[in-house]
Amino acid sequence: MQTAVIVGTGLLGSSFGLAARRAGLFGRIIGVSSPPVAAGALAVHAIDEVLDLAPALAEADFVLLAQPVRRILSLLGEIEPLVKPGALITDVGSTKVAICAAGAAITRATFIGGHPMAGREVRGPEGALATLFENRPWILTAPHAGLEEMVRSLGAQPVQLNPADHDRLVALSSHLPQLAATALASLLSENDLRQVAGPGILDMTRLALSSFPLWEDILSTNRDNIDAALAAYIGELEAVRAALRSGMLQPHFERGARLASQLRRA
Amino acid sequence: MQTAVIVGTGLLGSSFGLAARRAGLFGRIIGVSSPPVAAGALAVHAIDEVLDLAPALAEADFVLLAQPVRRILSLLGEIEPLVKPGALITDVGSTKVAICAAGAAITRATFIGGHPMAGREVRGPEGALATLFENRPWILTAPHAGLEEMVRSLGAQPVQLNPADHDRLVALSSHLPQLAATALASLLSENDLRQVAGPGILDMTRLALSSFPLWEDILSTNRDNIDAALAAYIGELEAVRAALRSGMLQPHFERGARLASQLRRA
Repeated sequence: MQTAVIVGTGLLGSSFGLAARRAGLFGRIIGVSSPPVAAGALAVHAIDEVLDLAPALAEADFVLLAQPVRRILSLLGEIEPLVKPGALITDVGSTKVAICAAGAAITRATFIGGHPMAGREVRGPEGALATLFENRPWILTAPHAGLEEMVRSLGAQPVQLNPADHDRLVALSSHLPQLAATALASLLSENDLRQVAGPGILDMTRLALSSFPLWEDILSTNRDNIDAALAAYIGELEAVRAALRSGMLQPHFERGARLASQLRRA
Repeated sequence: MQTAVIVGTGLLGSSFGLAARRAGLFGRIIGVSSPPVAAGALAVHAIDEVLDLAPALAEADFVLLAQPVRRILSLLGEIEPLVKPGALITDVGSTKVAICAAGAAITRATFIGGHPMAGREVRGPEGALATLFENRPWILTAPHAGLEEMVRSLGAQPVQLNPADHDRLVALSSHLPQLAATALASLLSENDLRQVAGPGILDMTRLALSSFPLWEDILSTNRDNIDAALAAYIGELEAVRAALRSGMLQPHFERGARLASQLRRA
């Protein structure tokens, strides 16, 4: 059986370890992480052992890079001399253009970008779930039968999308909603609204609790797409203002309800 | 014991009936509603009996108007000759300036505007809960010891706010989040995002499922405040765009996280 290395054993890395173990994918799962995060992954049995990066990569038939985007970028620049020839490398980074460009420079091994559309509000190996990827899309940036089969065996649905299309679509589906929530909560922070807060404002500000350091990487590696998405959203809000004044908001509500229902049927 | 009349026995009206019955507030609770909604309220024991508006009001020491805003407005214009002299009338309408102006014209009885900050995604008497108002603010537009005590006995927290302040604050806390969700979902409806949809976009589009007819009343009776709130939100999004380009988004995330945490501690 093959040996897997998970670099970064936080929520996603450890969930991958648990799901891969349940599916019986590997003979041995090695974790590479900072000491407390590696210890947490060992404690929940997401990995079998902990090694430093170089000795781990020397053993790895399969490598999962499960760290923030800019850490993945710097790893991709340094692992070429360390990886086992012919190894398969993938990642879980939230943006794909910069990562796949860095991955394309690796010639001793095969790099395919990945992005599982899964997550939880909690972080760290303590929140890891073997079921985290079940029935969720898992984007792959190029066709690769082995990787598609692996993703399927974790319960996820492999979806092929090139890096540019991925980054344009997640700017709309993920990065714009994050900034819409952050901007709304930031604006509202000027007022004390506790006495008039209902369930709607709680929904619309939940994402504003997100950690900035994680988002900093995403935002800095997908700036142009996000800027275009923000501009389109501002345009739509201006159209809503005009429709509010003319009493013509019904089509906006109908289009919005259609998209919201469609997402919930997916 | 006094007789209460609930005009409109949907989710809020029937929840009031259940909560008032549990608190032993009235000797008799009469419902006035369309036949199917009245039958639903009887079936869940939110009311004791059903009458037409005129005979019901002739009996009522206390009247709760629990219908959409514009229906409350038209009722306030027609009930003066029907109410029992000295009765106490309140409502649950989502905007207060127009309703309180109409209520001030009533001289045979006392009108105090109200707005319980409570709701559910389901509608109708079938979704009614005796606990719906527990630990939720219940805005009252003027001081009234009896009404404050009644609200407290339902488990809610009475909060006094004049109609103008109420409408300005709910434009920010409720109407802006609704239109932010509607605009986001309406914009995104141009793309097929099912394969890249994570939990964030589901949070940020849930409100877009709201019923337009209900919102039409709210939007048309609070247009200026909502327009100002939309303009401020657009300004904040432009500031976020500029900060994205200059890599200075951290203060926006920090302000947003502070507000989101504050709302969750409330």
